[in-house]
Amino acid sequence: MPRLAHRTELAVPFHAVELFKEANTLIAQGKDIISLGIGEPDFTAPPTVVEALQRAAAAGQAQYTPPSGTDELKAALCDYYRDHFNASVQPEQILVTAGASGALNLAALALVNPGDEVLMPDPSYPANQNFILAAGGIPRLIPSTAENRFQLTAADIEQHWTEKTRGVLIASPSNPTGATIDPKDLAELIQAVKARDGFIIMDEIYLGLYYEDKPQSALCLDPSLIVINSFSKYFHMTGWRLGWLIVPTEIRPAIEKIAASLAICAPALAQHAALACFEPEAMAIYEQRRLAFKARRDFLLPAFAAMGIQVPVTPDGAFYIYADISQHSQDSDDFSHRLLHEAHVAAVPGLDFGPAYAKKMLRFSYSTSLERLEEAVERMRRFLA
Amino acid sequence: MPRLAHRTELAVPFHAVELFKEANTLIAQGKDIISLGIGEPDFTAPPTVVEALQRAAAAGQAQYTPPSGTDELKAALCDYYRDHFNASVQPEQILVTAGASGALNLAALALVNPGDEVLMPDPSYPANQNFILAAGGIPRLIPSTAENRFQLTAADIEQHWTEKTRGVLIASPSNPTGATIDPKDLAELIQAVKARDGFIIMDEIYLGLYYEDKPQSALCLDPSLIVINSFSKYFHMTGWRLGWLIVPTEIRPAIEKIAASLAICAPALAQHAALACFEPEAMAIYEQRRLAFKARRDFLLPAFAAMGIQVPVTPDGAFYIYADISQHSQDSDDFSHRLLHEAHVAAVPGLDFGPAYAKKMLRFSYSTSLERLEEAVERMRRFLA
Repeated sequence: MPRLAHRTELAVPFHAVELFKEANTLIAQGKDIISLGIGEPDFTAPPTVVEALQRAAAAGQAQYTPPSGTDELKAALCDYYRDHFNASVQPEQILVTAGASGALNLAALALVNPGDEVLMPDPSYPANQNFILAAGGIPRLIPSTAENRFQLTAADIEQHWTEKTRGVLIASPSNPTGATIDPKDLAELIQAVKARDGFIIMDEIYLGLYYEDKPQSALCLDPSLIVINSFSKYFHMTGWRLGWLIVPTEIRPAIEKIAASLAICAPALAQHAALACFEPEAMAIYEQRRLAFKARRDFLLPAFAAMGIQVPVTPDGAFYIYADISQHSQDSDDFSHRLLHEAHVAAVPGLDFGPAYAKKMLRFSYSTSLERLEEAVERMRRFLA
Repeated sequence: MPRLAHRTELAVPFHAVELFKEANTLIAQGKDIISLGIGEPDFTAPPTVVEALQRAAAAGQAQYTPPSGTDELKAALCDYYRDHFNASVQPEQILVTAGASGALNLAALALVNPGDEVLMPDPSYPANQNFILAAGGIPRLIPSTAENRFQLTAADIEQHWTEKTRGVLIASPSNPTGATIDPKDLAELIQAVKARDGFIIMDEIYLGLYYEDKPQSALCLDPSLIVINSFSKYFHMTGWRLGWLIVPTEIRPAIEKIAASLAICAPALAQHAALACFEPEAMAIYEQRRLAFKARRDFLLPAFAAMGIQVPVTPDGAFYIYADISQHSQDSDDFSHRLLHEAHVAAVPGLDFGPAYAKKMLRFSYSTSLERLEEAVERMRRFLA
């Protein structure tokens, strides 16, 4: 049997996998489980995007594309940043990837040497640690606070930066909190990191899903940021595996060389079809769906408060509520299993997002219809009564 | 500007990129260039596969799949190995990936620790070095010989294995040679590597494109091999980005953990559509196309011989001819540029596949119609006259 590399042991598992297995067992037994667990929109691509895919496939547009993506898609992405996020992005900055996963993998490989430390807030998306580990780096989770919207701050950089630290990996809006970073705080954070000659990888995959002020891309503050985005969340194309990486033009060729070798290119048909996302018909649907997500959030927040489930930072994006269940249990893992088996509602215990708030937090995803959310709340109410 | 990781400098570039840029410039000037350069079939997916994609997209089957792929596709792949390559593969051994690239990336991450050496023959597919480098390993190209079909041998293992060596990465049929490894030689190679507790990654992405005896998978010889394959070459689905990795069942969970984090899953629509590849209509088309490739090879081999271009090992698979042009030039790079500019035929100089035969070899790809190949040969004849 081949011996496995050390990183297979270091890699952080997704603990909720066991919970999901139990949920699937219950479903197989005929139980009606409402999943608030999964980080995937319940919508799929609008009809015009599906039709664009069908046309591209019929036309045989399924050969390899250039490693950084088609010119058409890169141009469309530049327009998207200009029209929606107030940012000037050049096609030469873009690398189209197999989802945000491909972009994060590439960013880590391009920037992290073995032994380099990368700071990220606790809580964070669990896979972020594994991208750094895969590149030989050392992810360091820095406990964040509700006061700082569970984001890294300039003060964290002051306190935790060491000789080995090379950069930070942050997300706005964040998974699991759904909370954006305040632009002023972000500007200070950027300054603190750049003063130490560090890099900033900014995950903006939930940027389009905002429920308060219309956001800007972090690129508005600093065009040297490494920005991650994806067609999975706002554009509802999860399984299509299409995302992108924005980097300073000067370092693009070196990163493209790695992308060409390690991936050849992102899925071609998805690249051709994705152009339809930016047409008015599809954009109108995406905006309707964004408002549907907002309505779900606006339903859940007061319902949670009424049940004694606290939400320390009101989420202003994504489709997650990171909620404090300590009024009901001192062990979120145990609580999540009881919630599943007794109320038939699935949610992800805090441990998956870092140890700092593991015991008292749960992530609830509202990528489920309002009707199902109402039913879920009713079940939770009875369970907690 | 963010500093780049060391591996961006180590990564081996594809030198032919410059040649292809010149070819594109000539094409833009209206010149009729015949490309024998690219490693991509000129066929695209058969109609029934395209229709299956269209149906899957219309049905919204585009959500994330399990990290290792859909159960249906894994079952179909097991049947494929049983029916065509005489190998017993269990679904629990399979990880469906974003092309063979995704599979090679995953295999390297799973098996290679920083500083580990991995042996591969010179010549090899250039990206293979980069998969090892990305994992922090050290690729060591071992000059091979025509006598050994440009493959690694047990004697090479004896001679080149060091304390740091952890395994080998081989391909059969090989890119750039199109030559398979002899089963008896492979058995000895496996024995030599396993006697040293090493791993064998076997790239079989061209296994279905055979022109002599019907091949077996290397898994017939040893079920503990790590086997790479893809829908890109035999199934003509390059830009779909769909491949797979076969590993011993015992180590699958650890590798799946990494795959789930680093890729989430392979493209979902492609997974659903790929099931149609194994239906009789599509398989009949693939077999016709395989015979078309064989006819092209059978045309080129005597035509090359008549021009004084030697082919040291007759290719019995893939769609490449690795040819010795030393009767005409002592510098294959210069030769390839003159061939492009004077004869308007593009081929890849040997350097991209390793230094051992860099100067005298060229890789010609016959993923172009027989008619165009006839025209290419006519142009080469005039050029060499």
